[in-house]
Amino acid sequence: MPQYKAPLRDMQFVLHELLNAEEHYAKLPDFQGNVSRELVDQYLEAAADFCENELSPLNQVGDREGCTWNDGVVTTPTGFKEAYQKYIELGFPSLSAEEQYGGQGLPNSLGIAISEMVGSSNWAWGMYPGLSHGAVRTLEHHGSEEQKNTYLPNLVSGVWTGTMCLTESHAGSDLGIIRTKAEPNADGSYAISGEKIFISAGEHDMAENIIHIVLARLPGAPKGTKGISLFIVPKFNVNADGTLGERNAVRCGSIEHKMGIHGNATCVINFDQAKGYLIGPENRGLNCMFTFMNTARIGTAVQGLSASESSFQGALTYAKERLAMRSLSGPKAPEKEADPIIVHPAVRNMLLTQKAFAEGGRALVYLLAQYADIVEKGETEEERKFADNILSLLTPIAKAFLTETGSESAKHGVQVFGGHGFISEHGMEQIVRDTRIACLYEGTTEIQALDLLGRKVLQTQGAMLRDFTKIVHKFVEANKDNPAMKEFVEPLAALNKEWGDLTMQIGMRAMQNPDEVGAAAVDYLYFSGYVTLAYLWARMALVAQEKLAAGTTDVDFYNAKVTTARFYFKKILPRVRSHVDVIAGGLDPLMALDAEHFAF
Amino acid sequence: MPQYKAPLRDMQFVLHELLNAEEHYAKLPDFQGNVSRELVDQYLEAAADFCENELSPLNQVGDREGCTWNDGVVTTPTGFKEAYQKYIELGFPSLSAEEQYGGQGLPNSLGIAISEMVGSSNWAWGMYPGLSHGAVRTLEHHGSEEQKNTYLPNLVSGVWTGTMCLTESHAGSDLGIIRTKAEPNADGSYAISGEKIFISAGEHDMAENIIHIVLARLPGAPKGTKGISLFIVPKFNVNADGTLGERNAVRCGSIEHKMGIHGNATCVINFDQAKGYLIGPENRGLNCMFTFMNTARIGTAVQGLSASESSFQGALTYAKERLAMRSLSGPKAPEKEADPIIVHPAVRNMLLTQKAFAEGGRALVYLLAQYADIVEKGETEEERKFADNILSLLTPIAKAFLTETGSESAKHGVQVFGGHGFISEHGMEQIVRDTRIACLYEGTTEIQALDLLGRKVLQTQGAMLRDFTKIVHKFVEANKDNPAMKEFVEPLAALNKEWGDLTMQIGMRAMQNPDEVGAAAVDYLYFSGYVTLAYLWARMALVAQEKLAAGTTDVDFYNAKVTTARFYFKKILPRVRSHVDVIAGGLDPLMALDAEHFAF
Repeated sequence: MPQYKAPLRDMQFVLHELLNAEEHYAKLPDFQGNVSRELVDQYLEAAADFCENELSPLNQVGDREGCTWNDGVVTTPTGFKEAYQKYIELGFPSLSAEEQYGGQGLPNSLGIAISEMVGSSNWAWGMYPGLSHGAVRTLEHHGSEEQKNTYLPNLVSGVWTGTMCLTESHAGSDLGIIRTKAEPNADGSYAISGEKIFISAGEHDMAENIIHIVLARLPGAPKGTKGISLFIVPKFNVNADGTLGERNAVRCGSIEHKMGIHGNATCVINFDQAKGYLIGPENRGLNCMFTFMNTARIGTAVQGLSASESSFQGALTYAKERLAMRSLSGPKAPEKEADPIIVHPAVRNMLLTQKAFAEGGRALVYLLAQYADIVEKGETEEERKFADNILSLLTPIAKAFLTETGSESAKHGVQVFGGHGFISEHGMEQIVRDTRIACLYEGTTEIQALDLLGRKVLQTQGAMLRDFTKIVHKFVEANKDNPAMKEFVEPLAALNKEWGDLTMQIGMRAMQNPDEVGAAAVDYLYFSGYVTLAYLWARMALVAQEKLAAGTTDVDFYNAKVTTARFYFKKILPRVRSHVDVIAGGLDPLMALDAEHFAF
Repeated sequence: MPQYKAPLRDMQFVLHELLNAEEHYAKLPDFQGNVSRELVDQYLEAAADFCENELSPLNQVGDREGCTWNDGVVTTPTGFKEAYQKYIELGFPSLSAEEQYGGQGLPNSLGIAISEMVGSSNWAWGMYPGLSHGAVRTLEHHGSEEQKNTYLPNLVSGVWTGTMCLTESHAGSDLGIIRTKAEPNADGSYAISGEKIFISAGEHDMAENIIHIVLARLPGAPKGTKGISLFIVPKFNVNADGTLGERNAVRCGSIEHKMGIHGNATCVINFDQAKGYLIGPENRGLNCMFTFMNTARIGTAVQGLSASESSFQGALTYAKERLAMRSLSGPKAPEKEADPIIVHPAVRNMLLTQKAFAEGGRALVYLLAQYADIVEKGETEEERKFADNILSLLTPIAKAFLTETGSESAKHGVQVFGGHGFISEHGMEQIVRDTRIACLYEGTTEIQALDLLGRKVLQTQGAMLRDFTKIVHKFVEANKDNPAMKEFVEPLAALNKEWGDLTMQIGMRAMQNPDEVGAAAVDYLYFSGYVTLAYLWARMALVAQEKLAAGTTDVDFYNAKVTTARFYFKKILPRVRSHVDVIAGGLDPLMALDAEHFAF
């Protein structure tokens, strides 16, 4: 059975040495002096303990047992409920919530490393508090004072959980065509009717109440995305005194049988004139939802990183133990009947790929969390706006690129195990199944790609991209005369320039035919992902080299960092070449075939 | 529920128009005049009917129910046994077996299209007769006359099934270290003791007897691969009169819980002084096994092709029906609330990728089956030897490249379905799970890559590769002045040359350090795969263009073929560039990290 071990050393490297967390927090007026390195490490260690000892042992249990549905009641796998109680007792749900609602008022970014550990040890379990977090954020941003007072304290403490109800069976990527209706009641509330699907944590036995955040259409609302409003629909109505009232007309019609994340209940939720309360302005529901969606996308990027980390851990342990064949360059463990498979270059290639994606992904996700802090709590409008641009650009990259590379890492995990990788008990195939959803929900890879290339890059005439390539350029300029950084800085500089050229080339084509955007988007996203990670790997190599030059007792760690950066540049980054060439192939080869002539 | 439809038109295109099956059979002395186009089509249609109506409906049943184990007895999913009875009654198992043992004496290659249909409609089911086929082939090649008479008739008719028992829990890729023992009995038989794992179809309720072909070591046998012998171990001993005798000491200890192919029993088989009979010479078991292994590798390549085909069928149906968003170039179905997703370039890209891999894979696998016919039945030693070279070179390519691209296609199938792809009822995620094993068993992708680059290419000083690149070169020369073929022939000619150059470059490095072979092998395999498929797509485009030029009523089919070839060359083939660049990165980035410094 795989045993998760939190990669604390690397987390601390990213938080403290690469991203200077303490300094970052010191610059945010809300947190000045409140968030020390020690405090951060304390939280990391507490979360590591919980994840290693409580959640990790339940990961295979959850997969094997799954959730069960019986006449609208959902039972979670053995141990899930108890682990959730401990999670509440340890105060994790309230970490970054506002103090006036019982939160600890700490920065959101502090939660990202904890999310990673929860996700790596048991993603299916982590979705219950994870979805709640989305509901809390939506209420914090868009709820009325009364709504906040009614719902936030219990959501923040974790006594209640929340959901986000967007998808309908005919409407996933295209929310403009949802059909759920909201009709005004005389008392100012609304009667919500319709069927939502794919509602993660939509029904379960872990909390006293579930607060659904629901997209629905008001009577006479405009067609499409501009006619959608957002509602709070509690499972149990809440009395004026805060106690639970009668059961609302919200029912879990069934749960899905699915490829993975069996421990999480993916629910069909039926609303039958359920009592709901409008959040935010009428017909502006999708805008309110965007707050949540960006957070959710970064949260999903974490799932990719988690898959890379957990599959790397499993594969590494196995590769050091498993004996098979001799190294082609001569026996490495002559006293054994065969060499451990980590001697074989192809096995090392898979392990290093996982490692490069895990550690690179960690840097990217934690960086985004800092930008999100600044967007929310930054001192000046200017820095908030700038951070928002960078965050907007990098969010679809992180979401799609890290989930796809997470899937790739999971695949390598299975492959390192050989035939044993296919067997459930080793836990590697579960990662493949669990993480596959990450490329689908919160906007598929293809949707992220369109968001990146269409909305973020081309619709801003490249402005958002330039904001980021300038950062990369500055880094390149600052290090171009450092001989030890040459191997990283030179290819990075070239690709950073090519990123702009490639964008221009696609932009010109798109002026002829907008479908060129769709034809190029996915490859453009991969290109952007590989370059973004190259920038972060170069930065990590620099930090490591500086530590080594300054003298450190942690030589092996920093050397491994530089070595992995080198691996990334030599063995992963060349993948951009194919994406550039495929983009050059353009739209025509995709559109030439009539839909009726794909098969005969 | 997905419904498989045999792609008969395309199969006929490949068999008759691309590979001239009738002519091929006419050249083989054993079959002259016996195997007409009509006969081939008759078999295809019978198999299509069986697969579409019997096997396809059982595919999800098998996945859902799985096999059950109870005290050594394995029960297959509902309907599996009955379908197997029909399969026997229809005479499929005996198709290519020798007539003197009750076979129909038809060419082996005739079975390949049938395997594809069985595999695409229900891979887990297909493994029961599939493994049997391996046992039959091994007995035909290496069994004594008495052994053939005892075991073949019932195996050929399908009344009994067979297995191949190679793997032990500590020994998969490295069969040299197996521990199962064979001790001579006084009567000339052997007492076989040991535990074998991952024995597909190792125990089940579909046949009266199961004939295990087992690798084991004789007392005092040399260490390693040169000390392994091959044995027949029947589940029930067979009396002299052919009736079943007493139960042999062979027992199924358990079945595996695994990622996919739930309908197939993957067994732990315990041999406790079980009675066994030596096949072939002592200590030459692995050599005897190679006959089977090459066949099994082509059979596994079929699994990749099947995954591409079945995921393509599911995704195409969905992409034409599902409505989401508008085409970026303006509404294509303005009367509907959104456009069918097949209008979106990214969706088309996934569908065309699946189609290109399915149809290209079909061409490759059917071509290999013809070469295998020649190896076995060719008229002259010279043509047999030449075919053997080509087959040896292309087998690891087909096995690894088609199973990896099959996995990729399966992933696209899920992705086209969006969130629904993750839900079991749509059948797309099952294909991902079922086909993942294909990259592992019969030698992982990494093992195939070493076989290709190390054994086949470098150990022959490039001779085997040259045999094939000469064929490609001949094709290029013959068509270089055809303007309609220019877009295919030019890039193919360049890559064909680059293939040789790349090989030389790696060969030079390998002389410095043999580990360079391991570092380059997987990327080299992908390069080889993409180029091999490019050659076949160019040939298919030529056939289609000739048909169009000659006048045909099937214009749409041939146009689609040319269009798909163009897609392959513009949108898939550029992937070779990254593989070349990664190979150039060499060995060092893989070996620099000490095994103890991968994680901290």
